[in-house]
Amino acid sequence: MNKFRGQTAAVLRPRSTEEVSAIMRYCHERKLAVTPQGGNTGLVGGSVPLHDELILSTSLMNQVYGIDAVARTLTCQAGCVLETLNAALAEHDLMMPLDLGAKGSCQIGGNISSNAGGLRFLRYGSLHGSVLGLKAVLPNGDVIDTMKGLRKDNTGYDLKQLFIGSEGTLGIITEVLMGVVQKPSAVNVAFLACPGYDQVQQTLVAAQKGLGEILSAFEFLDHEGMRCVNETVDVPNPFDSTAPFYVLVETHGSNSEHDYAKLEAFLENAMETGCVVDGVVAQDATQAAALWQVRERITEGLQHDGVVYKYDISLPVQHLYSLVEAMRPRVADLATRCVGFGHLGDGNLHLNITSPTASEELFAQIEPFVYEFTREHRGSISAEHGLGLMKARHIHYSQPAANVTLMRQLKGLLDPHGLLNPYKTVEENPLNV
Amino acid sequence: MNKFRGQTAAVLRPRSTEEVSAIMRYCHERKLAVTPQGGNTGLVGGSVPLHDELILSTSLMNQVYGIDAVARTLTCQAGCVLETLNAALAEHDLMMPLDLGAKGSCQIGGNISSNAGGLRFLRYGSLHGSVLGLKAVLPNGDVIDTMKGLRKDNTGYDLKQLFIGSEGTLGIITEVLMGVVQKPSAVNVAFLACPGYDQVQQTLVAAQKGLGEILSAFEFLDHEGMRCVNETVDVPNPFDSTAPFYVLVETHGSNSEHDYAKLEAFLENAMETGCVVDGVVAQDATQAAALWQVRERITEGLQHDGVVYKYDISLPVQHLYSLVEAMRPRVADLATRCVGFGHLGDGNLHLNITSPTASEELFAQIEPFVYEFTREHRGSISAEHGLGLMKARHIHYSQPAANVTLMRQLKGLLDPHGLLNPYKTVEENPLNV
Repeated sequence: MNKFRGQTAAVLRPRSTEEVSAIMRYCHERKLAVTPQGGNTGLVGGSVPLHDELILSTSLMNQVYGIDAVARTLTCQAGCVLETLNAALAEHDLMMPLDLGAKGSCQIGGNISSNAGGLRFLRYGSLHGSVLGLKAVLPNGDVIDTMKGLRKDNTGYDLKQLFIGSEGTLGIITEVLMGVVQKPSAVNVAFLACPGYDQVQQTLVAAQKGLGEILSAFEFLDHEGMRCVNETVDVPNPFDSTAPFYVLVETHGSNSEHDYAKLEAFLENAMETGCVVDGVVAQDATQAAALWQVRERITEGLQHDGVVYKYDISLPVQHLYSLVEAMRPRVADLATRCVGFGHLGDGNLHLNITSPTASEELFAQIEPFVYEFTREHRGSISAEHGLGLMKARHIHYSQPAANVTLMRQLKGLLDPHGLLNPYKTVEENPLNV
Repeated sequence: MNKFRGQTAAVLRPRSTEEVSAIMRYCHERKLAVTPQGGNTGLVGGSVPLHDELILSTSLMNQVYGIDAVARTLTCQAGCVLETLNAALAEHDLMMPLDLGAKGSCQIGGNISSNAGGLRFLRYGSLHGSVLGLKAVLPNGDVIDTMKGLRKDNTGYDLKQLFIGSEGTLGIITEVLMGVVQKPSAVNVAFLACPGYDQVQQTLVAAQKGLGEILSAFEFLDHEGMRCVNETVDVPNPFDSTAPFYVLVETHGSNSEHDYAKLEAFLENAMETGCVVDGVVAQDATQAAALWQVRERITEGLQHDGVVYKYDISLPVQHLYSLVEAMRPRVADLATRCVGFGHLGDGNLHLNITSPTASEELFAQIEPFVYEFTREHRGSISAEHGLGLMKARHIHYSQPAANVTLMRQLKGLLDPHGLLNPYKTVEENPLNV
């Protein structure tokens, strides 16, 4: 996004929890500020040092300690890349419960620190449920260890939750114990065209009922998104004619015959009711991958336009696309494109607006309107990307004052000198970037 | 268990968050201690006032505000009884993601405060994942409101997590927004006999693979547990001959034909490999309920013996039954029964030892051995029941000192005068009960 440029005197690359602890102890004594950095794939500047913070990179902490195929757990260091973990798990017919576009470079520690959502959230749920244990180093160097590999443990407060989604402002995650899931032996992908947003919603409800326990993704894009991938990254429309909306439905299951039967019945029903006007079902893994390309390469495609204004919004499903419809006439000719896509099954919209160069006039049409609309409809101004540097000052759009007060008290308790990832998340950002 | 007797001058029965807030503000000003109480079904004395704490009962806060069938959410007050919520959801083909024996009287606020696990945890996961929002009143009367009905919301720290499993020591949960799940249109129950604990474990792995996405419960009991329900509550053994272990397998799915085919294939395979020596599949809901009785009425059956020493332990599955085997020779003739059963799929053992009357000699054989064994095998001394009054002083068996320090700092931050549910969870218990 070319939005943030970091500044630092040094990048520290520890190899163990003990080294991270020693670094933090040293920095705590000398009041040196530290910004933790994983794969550096975040979209809100959460891993960027703003003034002169030291960077603590977890890149060398990339050991997988073990996989327990009976308990279905994986133990590793925080710097392991998501795709690498999936490769290790595949040997045991297991996989990580989360998947996202940046999987080739994002690190599990960063995923957890930013409470990443991603493509299969609606099936495998939140990291607040699937992370079973963590080691985290506090700003003073103390180590919190919750690495017992147990699914149930009600002995006091669930401390690991503090570090999930707090963007490295309360502690540095150094080791991880994940609950992992069965790798599906049957995967099906269908790509559908819908005549309107009402029909997209009805298709979601039908998928939840008809596909039930095997539904693993329900993604959508609008015609502007489709046009973008067709034009800029040469990914073709699977259909001969265009439609206002497209939906990608995926199933994960253990029996391909059963799953295919369920998918066929769902599709037949959706076509009969007119919710879906055209549809294609992948016949093999290559076709499935090609259909996923349409959805996954939108982000890359948008970059071709020049500057991208990106928003990651949660809204009640019925209001979700109204934001795109309200935005289009506002940005009108100032924008190259105004695209809506995202994880509809989770109520998560990615709204992207492009233009050839940065434009204050355009920006003034987008913000604060996008945040005001979201507040008005009881949404969240950050569904899964986090607040980081970019949205820290906008927290009040989504959180009541009493919540922000308690968050700042927690920050003060764990990091009284404000040394860990300063100016992010719940802190005021003095530069107003 | 006849273990705890409460003392209080008054029971307060507020009807709203505002009334709870007013009560807490009043008590905060006057330094009056308060014990929140839901359905009072806990097993560790977490809702018992120890000295003269006021009881704040949530029983009159029993309104269901709404059910959103598209977003799959339920909004209600904390005093709603779990079974009542399920009845309301059933009209929309939905259900709560948790289920437990006390469902007829336990309240959702208490379930969340104690991070209840229960019978279908292995399918629908932890409350840390399925609770989408809460209102909680802090000890000073301030209200934390996270009631937006969104599945994804990364705007700052996830404050609701603080109140899940903290047993009413950090705040009083007054309103709840739950993510709910599809009510399965197909439910199957099989009851199996296994020749040894190794075979029980192998049956679990086979069920995870073969039943995959439809597996909803994997419960086990030993022959002592079976004998108990046969003798004391007149629930018969479904088999003609006895076996060392019994397993109850349940599936939840959307297609009965598919599910039955998967269950048959799984059973055939389990019988062929010798993991299962006898098995029965329920042919209708009445038979399914009868099979569940064997598992669900153990607790009631044990009460018939007189005094029950109950332990709720998490252990790695391979060590789980070793604790029962190590305990039996220790308690020998001092005990009437020494029974092991529980949620094997979650690594959760319920160890119960009975005797006609309380016996110090017997108790000395059980504690601290049960906690030492658990620590040695990296288990948890409270899988799902919590610490409450009973185990607060034993927290060190399952938590490193640095964790306990941070927990007490959190308690100090939110409740500096120690007015909310004192002597519980992370506090030292001065009476050593």
